[in-house]
Amino acid sequence: MAVKNHNSAVHLGFVWLVVSSTVLFQSSDGHRWKKYPLPKPCRNLVFYFHDVIYNGLNAENATSTLVGAPHGANLTLLAGKDNHFGDMAVFDDPITLDNNFHSPPVGRAQGFYFYDMKNTFSAWLGFTFVLNSTDHRGTITFGGADPILTKHRDISVVGGTGDFLMSRGIATVSTDAYEGDVYFRLCVNITLYECY
Amino acid sequence: MAVKNHNSAVHLGFVWLVVSSTVLFQSSDGHRWKKYPLPKPCRNLVFYFHDVIYNGLNAENATSTLVGAPHGANLTLLAGKDNHFGDMAVFDDPITLDNNFHSPPVGRAQGFYFYDMKNTFSAWLGFTFVLNSTDHRGTITFGGADPILTKHRDISVVGGTGDFLMSRGIATVSTDAYEGDVYFRLCVNITLYECY
Amino acid sequence: MAVKNHNSAVHLGFVWLVVSSTVLFQSSDGHRWKKYPLPKPCRNLVFYFHDVIYNGLNAENATSTLVGAPHGANLTLLAGKDNHFGDMAVFDDPITLDNNFHSPPVGRAQGFYFYDMKNTFSAWLGFTFVLNSTDHRGTITFGGADPILTKHRDISVVGGTGDFLMSRGIATVSTDAYEGDVYFRLCVNITLYECY
Repeated sequence: MAVKNHNSAVHLGFVWLVVSSTVLFQSSDGHRWKKYPLPKPCRNLVFYFHDVIYNGLNAENATSTLVGAPHGANLTLLAGKDNHFGDMAVFDDPITLDNNFHSPPVGRAQGFYFYDMKNTFSAWLGFTFVLNSTDHRGTITFGGADPILTKHRDISVVGGTGDFLMSRGIATVSTDAYEGDVYFRLCVNITLYECY
Repeated sequence: MAVKNHNSAVHLGFVWLVVSSTVLFQSSDGHRWKKYPLPKPCRNLVFYFHDVIYNGLNAENATSTLVGAPHGANLTLLAGKDNHFGDMAVFDDPITLDNNFHSPPVGRAQGFYFYDMKNTFSAWLGFTFVLNSTDHRGTITFGGADPILTKHRDISVVGGTGDFLMSRGIATVSTDAYEGDVYFRLCVNITLYECY
Repeated sequence: MAVKNHNSAVHLGFVWLVVSSTVLFQSSDGHRWKKYPLPKPCRNLVFYFHDVIYNGLNAENATSTLVGAPHGANLTLLAGKDNHFGDMAVFDDPITLDNNFHSPPVGRAQGFYFYDMKNTFSAWLGFTFVLNSTDHRGTITFGGADPILTKHRDISVVGGTGDFLMSRGIATVSTDAYEGDVYFRLCVNITLYECY
């Protein structure tokens, strides 16, 4: 009997799925093209990471460094004009569960960013969260445009390994704090829609 | 009765799906490994983007700049030998719906590329389309090898946000025009196979 | 009759699928969130690629070159301190089916890497396998952290084209050999979970 009930539920659920998909297929045209219903998120994670930019004086504490810069700029200081356009940094930043730089790190954010707009502050990020705590073991890799001055901006999850094998989703990033050209802290709110 | 009909259709569709998948599973070996039938594209988009490379004289109009170069080269001009091997550029290029540089932009193509072959012109691209028009709001991020001299080359869609949340697919890129080392225009024909 | 049998098999398989998914949905909480059962791999591939790093003396044979470096370092030699932190290289490396540098290449590994940790050797990789042999035509793009000193490390497959259209999965990378700062060979064991 239990099995039979399951069977009925299955059929109803399946009918709903197929019918709704079909409807969307049929109405698909240039202006109405969303095909699959968005699955319920399977995981939500919030982390902070902390970037201390090398500025010529903080070699000991810096967690990132410029490795590329446009003509006429140098690798010690962020380019003074054009909103750092063309400055590229490599980083290995601690990840914490709260906004305290001194909290025990649960992993490292490793990757690169570069400033890519002349007329405003905007960047492009490619990086990986390497998590190695009791709660999470694995990596999540992100990539995409980061319009810094926008309060909340979405960046794509492009890959994952370990606990996050083939995860898909987005990260909503916000600048939680910054201190001139020396420090910034990003809050990364990760929503995954496919978890294995 | 309507429900019953739906149920039948569902069963037939489902049988087809499972049977065809099963067959492919069973015949899966080293030489016959395509597992899932390719879904029908859910979206096709064509855009152009325009890259004006800084060459020491066009600071005002340039939309990209060298930020890295190999030993012996400089950041003002593309490396003269080895097909620009090792030159890395950051860009913020206007996206248009047609091949006219002066058409109203519908977004920005932001990212980086580098020349990565000594014996021919070839590049590697990582970039994001940031679309912000009445038709499209969101981002699509791409990555992959770009063998420039091939007429049509495919680059992977690796992520998406907003209207393009978790989109999957490819972009077929072709060089629509170029002027020496100062300007190129790419036509990007995007085919998405998963849309939400 | 055959059809009816198929139908029964379908129902059983489907019930199993939905019931197991449902159970996982229901029990999903902070500590038990794996939602989908991991599909069986659809493809396993093993390749080797060979990186010959430019060191000022091997311009003829080098397959990679530094294009970025931190303040105070140069582009001829890997940075002597801080475990090459901040050194960024672009590469176009031959791919072989075995660990012999002189075997006929089946494609090229093209992309970039940078060293991103001060206190140990660790890198971040973004690259594409461009395969063009009788067995494989297409590209696979990878991205993620590469903790070099770990024997086996997983990197995400982030995209694919051609034979590998929209492939998903991971690559388990191991350093098969290295010679100082001039040569390394990586073994890349690719497991794909979605093939079209």
